[in-house]
Amino acid sequence: MSQTLGEFDLIRRYFERPVRRAALGVGDDCALLALSPGMQLAVSTDMLVEGRHFLTTVPPRRLGHKALAVNLSDLAACGARPLAFTLALSLPRADETFVAGLAEGLFALAEAHDIELVGGDTTAGPLNLCITVMGEVPAGQALLRSGARTGDELWVSGQLGDARLALEVFRGRLAMDAAAMEQVRTAMEQPQPRVQLGMALRGVASAAIDLSDGLIGDLGHILQRSGVGAQVELARLPHSAVLAAQPPALREECLLAGGDDYELLFCAPAGRHDAVLEAGRLSGVPVQCIGHITARPGLCVVDAAGQAVPLQRLQAFDHFKS
Amino acid sequence: MSQTLGEFDLIRRYFERPVRRAALGVGDDCALLALSPGMQLAVSTDMLVEGRHFLTTVPPRRLGHKALAVNLSDLAACGARPLAFTLALSLPRADETFVAGLAEGLFALAEAHDIELVGGDTTAGPLNLCITVMGEVPAGQALLRSGARTGDELWVSGQLGDARLALEVFRGRLAMDAAAMEQVRTAMEQPQPRVQLGMALRGVASAAIDLSDGLIGDLGHILQRSGVGAQVELARLPHSAVLAAQPPALREECLLAGGDDYELLFCAPAGRHDAVLEAGRLSGVPVQCIGHITARPGLCVVDAAGQAVPLQRLQAFDHFKS
Repeated sequence: MSQTLGEFDLIRRYFERPVRRAALGVGDDCALLALSPGMQLAVSTDMLVEGRHFLTTVPPRRLGHKALAVNLSDLAACGARPLAFTLALSLPRADETFVAGLAEGLFALAEAHDIELVGGDTTAGPLNLCITVMGEVPAGQALLRSGARTGDELWVSGQLGDARLALEVFRGRLAMDAAAMEQVRTAMEQPQPRVQLGMALRGVASAAIDLSDGLIGDLGHILQRSGVGAQVELARLPHSAVLAAQPPALREECLLAGGDDYELLFCAPAGRHDAVLEAGRLSGVPVQCIGHITARPGLCVVDAAGQAVPLQRLQAFDHFKS
Repeated sequence: MSQTLGEFDLIRRYFERPVRRAALGVGDDCALLALSPGMQLAVSTDMLVEGRHFLTTVPPRRLGHKALAVNLSDLAACGARPLAFTLALSLPRADETFVAGLAEGLFALAEAHDIELVGGDTTAGPLNLCITVMGEVPAGQALLRSGARTGDELWVSGQLGDARLALEVFRGRLAMDAAAMEQVRTAMEQPQPRVQLGMALRGVASAAIDLSDGLIGDLGHILQRSGVGAQVELARLPHSAVLAAQPPALREECLLAGGDDYELLFCAPAGRHDAVLEAGRLSGVPVQCIGHITARPGLCVVDAAGQAVPLQRLQAFDHFKS
């Protein structure tokens, strides 16, 4: 009924694209999807709120990328292959430029992972993006948080801490030159979900999680679910030259409790060391062994001299504290 | 890591319940679900924003019910059987009383439909609830908006317009006695998703949609997708005695463009008239034939005298206009 066509319907149309794989996409009451035989559905939801998960200064294109990236990162942590996603969007006003940029960033990443937007909702309200991703994983092969075993090696992908450095700059607590800022800002605003690595780690890793809240907090989830402890070697944590140039206390905070890294943290039996390196090579993502799982509960971080680093002074990122 | 346990983690725990059917529920990176063989996954997402989709006056228990109900209503409109849902929740503060009420309403309806909360996200921010429901439907049997054919009868379940009456009272434009108010407020705050009816209409209905934005707007989606028109008889639209007692112009507005009804609007070949009545009986929901599908495009609403009702004066509920 054309008489009910509001400005918002026009905005909504930025997100209506023909689907190739889904049986039915955006525009009906539900989307319809088929899974391959023997596959389980993997589902994850993340909600991004302005001022909390992203700054007002973020270019819309990068926001679109990030909103989908953090969700794909959850599928990666399960070793699932992404299939499709839904988007619910609350916008203060029907701002076409903003929506066009958002759609551009979202669909560029979606196409890079060969997935489709199959449904959604658009409404007026404070800026909020909620994405639900769906993927598939062979039944029984999903990487869980609960599988870590004593003696497993502990690994991380990519580099840690740059996203937190960017946040410190935006908060006005830190200054750096333009090239360094562009690097850390890209880490914060354009994380690359480690989907290929997650899939390559099926049958190799014993447990996995994606790093969204900081190494200590997220490792804590694995330890708690697996009923084990861990020792982490601070000097082995992979980081950029920009982070290396920061004062030690800030460096430590960014590495251990930075948040927003969206790298994979995972465990694998020591005997699968080479298989992990091969999974990293195959997926084009550096992987670094950073410690091991212990029978003794709790987390011990040691410095280059083998001394325990006191963790009391660190606070993993908590959405309700910061 | 207990040192990172914030107030928000406590709130989050209201939503962590053991899953019975899903392979893996809340608490890992993804939830895992298996579909039955031959089934397609049906997915829908709805976002509810305070002041837009619900009033600040709504009791939290009713809000929890409604947030899930409007999503289940989308599955109902596809004829899908609900399986599971995710919840993303943005809250201004960690208000335990509010969250306890919300969880109570949500889980009561979930249990009534034998479905599970399998994942979610909780964050600080303006009040916003985003639910994604997943269901299953035999491949090729989903009810779509595009299946209406010339000569089909047009049907609606339940009664229309009471939810809109309640909104008018809350807006201060209308007054009514307490008993009447309780009835229309219940219609607004506690809609019953027509899940059983939707499943019973598989193989009977040719097209279906759920009524969220008002009869005219939602029927428009069926007509547009199906490439047909419709004639609706105003006098046949099912309504309560409370609505019948209102002035004709308001009654008409509520029936044709009320919004928030969450009844099913569907089409079926005239030869399936008795099958539709039987589906209504089986699911315990009244169904009413309100008109028919025409080859001529557009919507014609006629009054009891057979005169066309001018629709220009009506506005279907648009989230960006009201």
